[in-house]
Amino acid sequence: NKKLRVAVLPGDGIGREITESAVRVMREAIGKDKIEFIEGDIGGIAYDNTGDPLPKETVDLCKNSHGILLGAVGGDKWDHLPGDKRPEAGLLRLRKELGVYSNLRPAVIYTELREASPLKPHIIGDKLDIMIVRELTGGIYFGEKERIEERASDKMAYSKYEVERIARIAFEQAMGRRKRITSIDKANVLFSSKLWRETVEEVAKSYPEVEVNHLYIDNAAMQMVIDPGQFDVIVTSNMFGDIISDIASVITGSIGMLPSASMGDGVSLYEPIHGSAPDIADKNIANPMATIISGAMLMENSLNMMEEAQRIYRAIEKVLEAGYRTSDISTKGGVPLGTREITQKIIEYL
Amino acid sequence: NKKLRVAVLPGDGIGREITESAVRVMREAIGKDKIEFIEGDIGGIAYDNTGDPLPKETVDLCKNSHGILLGAVGGDKWDHLPGDKRPEAGLLRLRKELGVYSNLRPAVIYTELREASPLKPHIIGDKLDIMIVRELTGGIYFGEKERIEERASDKMAYSKYEVERIARIAFEQAMGRRKRITSIDKANVLFSSKLWRETVEEVAKSYPEVEVNHLYIDNAAMQMVIDPGQFDVIVTSNMFGDIISDIASVITGSIGMLPSASMGDGVSLYEPIHGSAPDIADKNIANPMATIISGAMLMENSLNMMEEAQRIYRAIEKVLEAGYRTSDISTKGGVPLGTREITQKIIEYL
Ligand SMILES: CC(C)[C@H](C(=O)O)[C@@H](O)C(=O)O
Ligand SMILES: CC(C)[C@H](C(=O)O)[C@@H](O)C(=O)O
Repeated sequence: NKKLRVAVLPGDGIGREITESAVRVMREAIGKDKIEFIEGDIGGIAYDNTGDPLPKETVDLCKNSHGILLGAVGGDKWDHLPGDKRPEAGLLRLRKELGVYSNLRPAVIYTELREASPLKPHIIGDKLDIMIVRELTGGIYFGEKERIEERASDKMAYSKYEVERIARIAFEQAMGRRKRITSIDKANVLFSSKLWRETVEEVAKSYPEVEVNHLYIDNAAMQMVIDPGQFDVIVTSNMFGDIISDIASVITGSIGMLPSASMGDGVSLYEPIHGSAPDIADKNIANPMATIISGAMLMENSLNMMEEAQRIYRAIEKVLEAGYRTSDISTKGGVPLGTREITQKIIEYL
Repeated sequence: NKKLRVAVLPGDGIGREITESAVRVMREAIGKDKIEFIEGDIGGIAYDNTGDPLPKETVDLCKNSHGILLGAVGGDKWDHLPGDKRPEAGLLRLRKELGVYSNLRPAVIYTELREASPLKPHIIGDKLDIMIVRELTGGIYFGEKERIEERASDKMAYSKYEVERIARIAFEQAMGRRKRITSIDKANVLFSSKLWRETVEEVAKSYPEVEVNHLYIDNAAMQMVIDPGQFDVIVTSNMFGDIISDIASVITGSIGMLPSASMGDGVSLYEPIHGSAPDIADKNIANPMATIISGAMLMENSLNMMEEAQRIYRAIEKVLEAGYRTSDISTKGGVPLGTREITQKIIEYL
């Protein structure tokens, strides 16, 4: 089995269109036939086809691949289903099965798209470059859940081991960047946050060059809106990471451009930050760039194709410089291209 | 015991200055000697004086008052203390002791302060008027907590009863406003959120005129930054309310102007949204207006002094119209006044 294999999980809504775009670009950048792309079902469509939002074949496919590219899951259509049948449950189980405890979510601003930020120019500043490191396989997402008649509960639990390993990832990231870490918790109220904070402090001792700062989640959410430039690397728990990374991505004004990587000890999973946007599915208007960039990250980190990935990043920059946009990021002037058309442009610039 | 009694709990940091201002304005608006203001200790200062961030005398004082005005609690100085000795623990225990399960946090923009918003003018729009109804005595703040060596946990639990009573408060608010409710949860992941959503839907049946919308907390945090005008009344759990209300207050650009009221079946508690800001304490620069407005809310809701409260609201508007500012809200041009000086101005305009 010499051939490199990428599992492609389109999922729901715009998932099919954007993963198709990404695969087209990746094939083109790599040269045909060096990689096999194999498709698997996940989310609502998997439920519709098999009764399970994460069929066993998909898990097997993923575990036997060198990297996984995911579109997005979910939609109103499946909202009435019991918790474990919902599209999101499929994604959560996949994260857990793969053990991808570390979710990297960069929030950057493309110079050409600065105008799209909802924040005033003096607040967003000249550039923004935040790396959010979110714990992905623990916390309240995976703690014990109970429903007893008229009462329900979810447990937010962390072990020192879980915090240590994600903290280390964050410190390593910081070492390759501006050497600043902000750890986000709610240590004035939560026991799990106190453990989090203590453990981050302990790990910090091995990285004396890195400046560490702790913020409560409520304050961090505010700071993200009034002074985002203060952040370099953020490390936080599963749920706080879900919230803060969404704020970070939206202030860039280009959520349709942002990729993410989920890593652990085995195969890694790459997906755009944005959701499945069922309302614009199959209209050829979705922005495929976050998924294309996710694909490039997959090539860089999981297939060791640094150069080919760089070509993709550069092609995207050139496409933006040339003024091509999709409708979500089109500011005054430009004529937005469709999903397929912008994909074609990127391929031309490769 | 005919005389009306207000408990005043200055707390830490700027707490003393701002509550002093508020009491001055309230006395002036009411006419001397109709009310007695009695001071009690809470937070870090209470810990320093008595070893307990919420001494029994303070609880007794509060329960025997007609309303409670609080400054703010907390500061780095006490961060090393064990969980139950921290200033915040005093505040949480007070909320629980009083049973103030309903926390109303209005986020409004004063026309004169529109420029201070971090959001672009077309996003913040002409006006913003959101009422956040946060559940305050349940959820993960008060669920079972555990710390066993290298593992720690917090339980987020809700009963149907708890959700029902807070939902009813929110729907009543909506009926007196634009009749739109957004309920915020994470029902795609949390059992407690599913119960929350079901229960809100049930309560909604009694308010057919109110339009109800459900958002996940990650999406809600984004929406608050890109389209805050969509919100009228928000109802949410203790922790999500903590986060979303801080974002809402900061996008107004005038967090130093925002009051809050915490109500239940007994005495109500009024306090500014902002924190204790130890870095600017005792410098006569803190903005006392959020606390003064909290005092006016106390008069309106707990002392039945509608007219006197209205005079205070109007005085504050006039002071802003006349161009007087504190440093936190001073935009270009104006000369900021000190805490005492702006208080004096408000008294002049009464
Ligand atoms: C779909 C949902 C379960 C998921 C999460 O909350 O983790 C999504 O919001 C994300 O951030 O990847
Ligand atoms: C001080 C802290 C415990 C408190 C909270 O989280 O409730 C504060 O942030 C608030 O919102 O009143």
